[in-house]
Amino acid sequence: MPNQPPPVVSIVAKSGSGKTTFIEKLLPALKARGLRVGVIKHHGHPTLFDLPGKDTYRHFQAGADVVVGASAAQVAVFRRQDGAADLDAVIAEHFAGLDLVLTEGFKRGPYPKIEVHRAARSSEILCDPSELLAIVTDEPLAVPTPQFGLEDAGGVAGLLVEWLERQA
Amino acid sequence: MPNQPPPVVSIVAKSGSGKTTFIEKLLPALKARGLRVGVIKHHGHPTLFDLPGKDTYRHFQAGADVVVGASAAQVAVFRRQDGAADLDAVIAEHFAGLDLVLTEGFKRGPYPKIEVHRAARSSEILCDPSELLAIVTDEPLAVPTPQFGLEDAGGVAGLLVEWLERQA
Repeated sequence: MPNQPPPVVSIVAKSGSGKTTFIEKLLPALKARGLRVGVIKHHGHPTLFDLPGKDTYRHFQAGADVVVGASAAQVAVFRRQDGAADLDAVIAEHFAGLDLVLTEGFKRGPYPKIEVHRAARSSEILCDPSELLAIVTDEPLAVPTPQFGLEDAGGVAGLLVEWLERQA
Repeated sequence: MPNQPPPVVSIVAKSGSGKTTFIEKLLPALKARGLRVGVIKHHGHPTLFDLPGKDTYRHFQAGADVVVGASAAQVAVFRRQDGAADLDAVIAEHFAGLDLVLTEGFKRGPYPKIEVHRAARSSEILCDPSELLAIVTDEPLAVPTPQFGLEDAGGVAGLLVEWLERQA
């Protein structure tokens, strides 16, 4: 089904465990395997994106409901929100046609998860192992979940490719 | 028809004539009349939007095809482009449900236009009067097009409301 939303996997961690850094390593490993990948990042506070002073920023500040900036490298869409976005609606609207969507965070969300764990940040994992596809960790953990080192983005990408094949 | 794309008007000018500044005045005047308004800005060079260093920016740089940032104030979507975007497709995709879309620039585009004119920037107007709904100018011009002062965003908003009623 061409308009089926893509599978979603949440990358979760205690703050400061290096979620963003790990996603930065995982994305090129997934792209190298031929996947088209989207990422969604949720901010708990009412953040604005875009660069202050840019024309698109000025239009948004002046009251536009939706601002689009288009260049030969990127199309950026800025839509006014009044309260939390509906994540499923955002995914259906903006990620159609991709192979995989990663969420940064959403640890209480319904999607399968990969937890990034550092011994220095926590003595235990956040999630129930039944929710986890994998753990990315700097120490071995006594759970039956597949475990990868913090640098092993290639291993995690391989696991995700196999998981996607099982979803198809 | 609920999914009909909204009417589009292009705000055009010689560079340095104050297009962005005029749009900043026009948006609150349109909002005050109850309209839901989008703006699209085209950059001729391969600009990236977003703030360097922000997580969404890092995800895009790392190779994600689409990045979404969501907060309680704004949803931002960053989509990789390889070459110029199809403006009609962008409008249909992102502006459905609005009352009016303004484009900043696109002076060779097919949409009805409002030209911003300053005597110090040019001795003549850019567009053929037949393409123009109005001229915003700091000097009277010998053309049969409705003319408004550079500060008269309210007058232009009133003209646009009447024009939209004629499109309905």
